[in-house]
Amino acid sequence: MKNEIKAAVVQHGCQGDYQKNLEQSIDGINKATERGANLVLLPELHTLPYFCICEDGRYFDLAEPIPGTTTEALAILARDRQTVIVASVFEKRARGIYHNTAVVLDRDGSIAGTYRKMHIPDDPGYYEKYYFTPGDQGFVPVSTSIGRLGVLVCWDQWFPEAARLMALAGAEVLLFSSAIGWEPGDNKQEKARQLDAWITIQKAHAIANHLPVLVSNRIGHETDPAGNTDGTDFWGSSFIAGPQGELLATAGTDKAAVINADLDIEKTETLRRSWPYFRDRRIDHYHGLLERFLDTTSPPD
Amino acid sequence: MKNEIKAAVVQHGCQGDYQKNLEQSIDGINKATERGANLVLLPELHTLPYFCICEDGRYFDLAEPIPGTTTEALAILARDRQTVIVASVFEKRARGIYHNTAVVLDRDGSIAGTYRKMHIPDDPGYYEKYYFTPGDQGFVPVSTSIGRLGVLVCWDQWFPEAARLMALAGAEVLLFSSAIGWEPGDNKQEKARQLDAWITIQKAHAIANHLPVLVSNRIGHETDPAGNTDGTDFWGSSFIAGPQGELLATAGTDKAAVINADLDIEKTETLRRSWPYFRDRRIDHYHGLLERFLDTTSPPD
Repeated sequence: MKNEIKAAVVQHGCQGDYQKNLEQSIDGINKATERGANLVLLPELHTLPYFCICEDGRYFDLAEPIPGTTTEALAILARDRQTVIVASVFEKRARGIYHNTAVVLDRDGSIAGTYRKMHIPDDPGYYEKYYFTPGDQGFVPVSTSIGRLGVLVCWDQWFPEAARLMALAGAEVLLFSSAIGWEPGDNKQEKARQLDAWITIQKAHAIANHLPVLVSNRIGHETDPAGNTDGTDFWGSSFIAGPQGELLATAGTDKAAVINADLDIEKTETLRRSWPYFRDRRIDHYHGLLERFLDTTSPPD
Repeated sequence: MKNEIKAAVVQHGCQGDYQKNLEQSIDGINKATERGANLVLLPELHTLPYFCICEDGRYFDLAEPIPGTTTEALAILARDRQTVIVASVFEKRARGIYHNTAVVLDRDGSIAGTYRKMHIPDDPGYYEKYYFTPGDQGFVPVSTSIGRLGVLVCWDQWFPEAARLMALAGAEVLLFSSAIGWEPGDNKQEKARQLDAWITIQKAHAIANHLPVLVSNRIGHETDPAGNTDGTDFWGSSFIAGPQGELLATAGTDKAAVINADLDIEKTETLRRSWPYFRDRRIDHYHGLLERFLDTTSPPD
């Protein structure tokens, strides 16, 4: 069992109704496990609208503790369906301290571990720095009955450092739950470049580390209650890639979907023998990676 | 001029005849500059057969000092054609000390700088650890009259650390000269996965750092004089990508080619404002990148 992961990714839209959102996730998990999945990844903040679209103090009331309502509902499902579930939760950790946290529920319904989002974005439509305290657990895979999961969340996907650190710490799979989309006003070419960049860089994490990658996203338009932006068209396109970045399963840009793929974890060993990047990393010359910037010249005009 | 780089990549095959190989490079540079190029990237070890295909002490005689025959020929061309040339040379640095070195010739014919390959591969058909002392200059861009060039060589392309360090040190363009190909015996699917992985990870360096990327490769079959392998089918596929990883120019897998693309260096600034990865890197939690491996569990069976 250990060396065969039957992976699935659930993609759906999320609007204002918590219960409806959760039911979509549950339906997706049921569908995934009917197809044999023992690992299911849900979209980022899957029970909630993407409230970070604007800054409004009332949204802090949406947060919940871990364990809490959502993880308890999913724990029952994990045990019933004998599947590991990776679920993103708006975590209330303490008074006034909130995180964007991925919870890993093991097949016995226990919480195997959590990952608190380390890289926090902030730009128009994604005001996450307002809501989320940056994670303080570092990049540590979660050990489960089916393997060690390198769980990461959305913005992390743009940082090769995050994937590498998970791989160095023994991750056997990389997982990215996302809530990312287009600005409606961008032109077709720009939208295509952004989506392609998002797929490419996550395939590259598979390639650089010889690990399979699961990527989830939400779909549909969500409006900006503050009216500062035209809202976001979440671009779906969830996928599962093998350890050479090869696409094993893909979802479309605008429909709810459940995608499944069997992962051969032994392939990581075979590939690392043929393409031994870990043998050859120049750790004696990587200290600059711990710096903000190294350039000593004056900034360009 | 500073903010417009007219880039070109030369792709050709290389066999046993130094002069013929060099002439192909010169022809390519002439063609590139006739189209307006002010930056030309040549394939790795462009004047030589890929001698690392086997281990044979006689091949050390192919090495040359820098400056030397090859750089002097190219320096004249750089000045005549008013172009920066990035040329890979088998460098004899001192008695018994050899490097795989990329030389940057500026438009006045001077040597603007060098990059000594940092990550050295070693696997059947690519016995580079036998020939090349690992680079000791680190990841430092070469300043030229057209901008700061993040020059890297082949195996470096699989290491996100290398591209990131060049970007942190102020590189404005990333350049990878390569000599990489298929084992003739691999099946079509495996060949496709390898080529796609190679393109994908280098596009991802563009995306992660918001820098344009130039990639060169050689073409054609080269035999293994030692007979240990069936030789290598170099897969060409040189390309130029913009700072979102978008392909601007591509070459085929089996024909000599010169590809050109204009690079808008200002786009890096625009993209980094919209997608501020450098603002958000978690350098407080990246120390693990300086380690070989972090896993504390016992190795899997």
